[in-house]
Amino acid sequence: MRNLLSIEDLGREEIEAILDRAESFAEVGRRDIKKVPTLRGRTVVSLFFESSTRTSSSFELAAKRLSADLVSVKAAGSSVDKGESLKDTVATLSAYDPAAIVIRHPYAGAAQMVAGWTAAAVVNAGDGKHEHPSQALLDVYTLRRRLDSLDGRRIWIVGDVLHSRVARSDVLAFTRMGAEVTVCGPPTLIPRGIEGLGCAVEHSLERLEEADVVYALRMQTERMSESFVPSLREYAANFQINSRRLHPRQLLMHPGPVNRGVEISGEAVDSPQSLIAEQVAAGLVVRMAILYELLAGAERPAPVPDDGSGAPAGPTPIGQPA
Amino acid sequence: MRNLLSIEDLGREEIEAILDRAESFAEVGRRDIKKVPTLRGRTVVSLFFESSTRTSSSFELAAKRLSADLVSVKAAGSSVDKGESLKDTVATLSAYDPAAIVIRHPYAGAAQMVAGWTAAAVVNAGDGKHEHPSQALLDVYTLRRRLDSLDGRRIWIVGDVLHSRVARSDVLAFTRMGAEVTVCGPPTLIPRGIEGLGCAVEHSLERLEEADVVYALRMQTERMSESFVPSLREYAANFQINSRRLHPRQLLMHPGPVNRGVEISGEAVDSPQSLIAEQVAAGLVVRMAILYELLAGAERPAPVPDDGSGAPAGPTPIGQPA
Amino acid sequence: MRNLLSIEDLGREEIEAILDRAESFAEVGRRDIKKVPTLRGRTVVSLFFESSTRTSSSFELAAKRLSADLVSVKAAGSSVDKGESLKDTVATLSAYDPAAIVIRHPYAGAAQMVAGWTAAAVVNAGDGKHEHPSQALLDVYTLRRRLDSLDGRRIWIVGDVLHSRVARSDVLAFTRMGAEVTVCGPPTLIPRGIEGLGCAVEHSLERLEEADVVYALRMQTERMSESFVPSLREYAANFQINSRRLHPRQLLMHPGPVNRGVEISGEAVDSPQSLIAEQVAAGLVVRMAILYELLAGAERPAPVPDDGSGAPAGPTPIGQPA
Repeated sequence: MRNLLSIEDLGREEIEAILDRAESFAEVGRRDIKKVPTLRGRTVVSLFFESSTRTSSSFELAAKRLSADLVSVKAAGSSVDKGESLKDTVATLSAYDPAAIVIRHPYAGAAQMVAGWTAAAVVNAGDGKHEHPSQALLDVYTLRRRLDSLDGRRIWIVGDVLHSRVARSDVLAFTRMGAEVTVCGPPTLIPRGIEGLGCAVEHSLERLEEADVVYALRMQTERMSESFVPSLREYAANFQINSRRLHPRQLLMHPGPVNRGVEISGEAVDSPQSLIAEQVAAGLVVRMAILYELLAGAERPAPVPDDGSGAPAGPTPIGQPA
Repeated sequence: MRNLLSIEDLGREEIEAILDRAESFAEVGRRDIKKVPTLRGRTVVSLFFESSTRTSSSFELAAKRLSADLVSVKAAGSSVDKGESLKDTVATLSAYDPAAIVIRHPYAGAAQMVAGWTAAAVVNAGDGKHEHPSQALLDVYTLRRRLDSLDGRRIWIVGDVLHSRVARSDVLAFTRMGAEVTVCGPPTLIPRGIEGLGCAVEHSLERLEEADVVYALRMQTERMSESFVPSLREYAANFQINSRRLHPRQLLMHPGPVNRGVEISGEAVDSPQSLIAEQVAAGLVVRMAILYELLAGAERPAPVPDDGSGAPAGPTPIGQPA
Repeated sequence: MRNLLSIEDLGREEIEAILDRAESFAEVGRRDIKKVPTLRGRTVVSLFFESSTRTSSSFELAAKRLSADLVSVKAAGSSVDKGESLKDTVATLSAYDPAAIVIRHPYAGAAQMVAGWTAAAVVNAGDGKHEHPSQALLDVYTLRRRLDSLDGRRIWIVGDVLHSRVARSDVLAFTRMGAEVTVCGPPTLIPRGIEGLGCAVEHSLERLEEADVVYALRMQTERMSESFVPSLREYAANFQINSRRLHPRQLLMHPGPVNRGVEISGEAVDSPQSLIAEQVAAGLVVRMAILYELLAGAERPAPVPDDGSGAPAGPTPIGQPA
């Protein structure tokens, strides 16, 4: 695995290898010193052209917990203001010889392009409406911990599927792991031909009770002014996930940030069946695992830099997952 | 001590314990390696919903000098732009299992609310017009170094007391440490009933010579348009602290940033009796002490993580205050 | 060397000492652990009042690779918003006892003023139209690696010389290193009396073939509205550096970010004779060398803090350039 650009590039075994690695980092997170020396002295670039709290902070903390040095570039306040092209920005940052570049960009395919311009491993942290593979991996991780296996599980993804890179990556990842996926939303918000990804399509919540897992998508409020929905109120009346519609047996997910009272009710967010906080926690360990697999995995078999403990460097140094 | 939300929660002995700890960090600051390993592998979140140079940079540097990993979230450029609620932002960041969350927020009581939503220690770095307890502690620290004790000292706090969280926290802290506090300003800028906190009230500087310490508050220029003062010029004529009004025996303080020529004259800022630079330096060591007391104090008696020196971990490892 | 404010302060030997040091850091950059412990436990402040990707990120990464703790203050979102004076901002940051302050500011002479207000070493990262000395040093470094020596080399600096701090610092540095420098641009963009710095002046590219090195300057698009050039199109017609004008024997440089199609053509940027990516890579190691020379050089002969490896501290600890 050289880059993480799309769930399409990953087989079931590769996904499982990342999730297993993430489990070992979850164990590190329960220690007092939540840190391993794996990437000490190596550089990770975080390059975000769209605002983000959870994705950027979890990638950045993941890099720090792997002991990497971090260069964080946000679009505002950078040379991007001066109209520098993406290619030149990447060339600039690549000149520091970073081990990885984590990129979020509003254009579909941006991460793929970046991968062609740099020797660093490229991680797609969201490219337009295309994909958000680390989100899908953390979603699978979260479900696997609860359900043991996704095989035969029925997962409904509800809401604005059309504009959602999360939906696209999740459909790919959930089906690859054996789940039966249904996407559901008003016809204006379901992309034509999405059945081609291997999912079913519904336009109402009538049969929601079939689902084992309900995954609510964020509704951008600007969709209303863009006429995709007549009003947020009408959208909520037909598609909001709330405790009236949700069966206590069902698990609830959301990629965040939530719009309480729009695509999801506040009480549903805070209910025991909500996995939303678990998803965020999963984000950190899954992103550690992604960086580990890309930078310290197979092609680099003995990444045993000094761990700062003074202990001799060996095949399984202290504080490093075996 | 689980959180630092308000000076009201602190007894004199607790304040003194923090200040004594801060003295030990001042000693660390005089070394070549101004760093201790106390919080190595633990995470501190800095969450600022208002702009700040000195408070955010001193908390962040304090965390780094304690060897913590830092996650810094500013309101601009974060999911807060997307209208995420404070509760959800805190839930997100709490999912990383941080040791502490340092929060500044425009609403009074915000830090208290956050403390109810997270297992992390919460440090109030300013909540609306309510409190700014770390500022008050660094102010007491600064005065204690100069005056040895605050008992019986007369401290005048001058200016916009009404909108000042610093004034509120300082009145509480100074009186708790035995000082006699007077607040002074035009009636429009003195909150009704403030005598209830144990201070006297004055509406002119006529008797300023009584003070041992003069503490000038920042005048927000927008107060003029809000009609709290007729003009900055008239305010300055009546309440500006300058060398004509200040006796050379008196000490001068200000929380910064100063408006030279408004609430304080430039020459007063730069005079030998000004403690303003000492206050900033105190901010760093007092904030290290706050984080230490919350995260490595009584309930965690043996915080002796590896110090990176290769020396055996013992009860008083190298580079850690005894 | 106490500060780096201007190339004017540096003799040829001092420049060569910095470049030699930078070579040793280039060697560190080829290791797996691209990091040395030189500044462990010391603080570097990065204070940028203008937006920047490459200069701020390379100084910040340089500080991290030297193991310093970094405090990064950008003008937006800081107390600077509240109208704090530069002097007070510097006093605030100096109270943390930083080893160095790296400053970019829109006013010529700002770095010099800052140096008078702080005990920290001050590095000028660009002060208005005055100087950008670290850029000039990395440019000399890049050329020295390619040409071995600058003695007798003919370097043309082409474009908006009038507004360019890079041009000013480069003319000084290149001539000091023995090169023959020509500045070239329309008369409106060449400052009067620049010959006094020891360079020739041209107003057309007719004799560009004389040059061994062509250094294109960035054209700010706002210069057009300010009437310095009639149109970007006409400027490009007369002064754009492109493969039609460039001889394959000539080397091409640019300080970035480039405006493809304005002062330089895209194909020229990407051509084998372009040193632009090498310049960025040089920026990192030269800035490490600048911080090293200022903070760990002659007047501090034995900067051998613990390197985290557990090895005994000696005159040449592991991971530190000899």
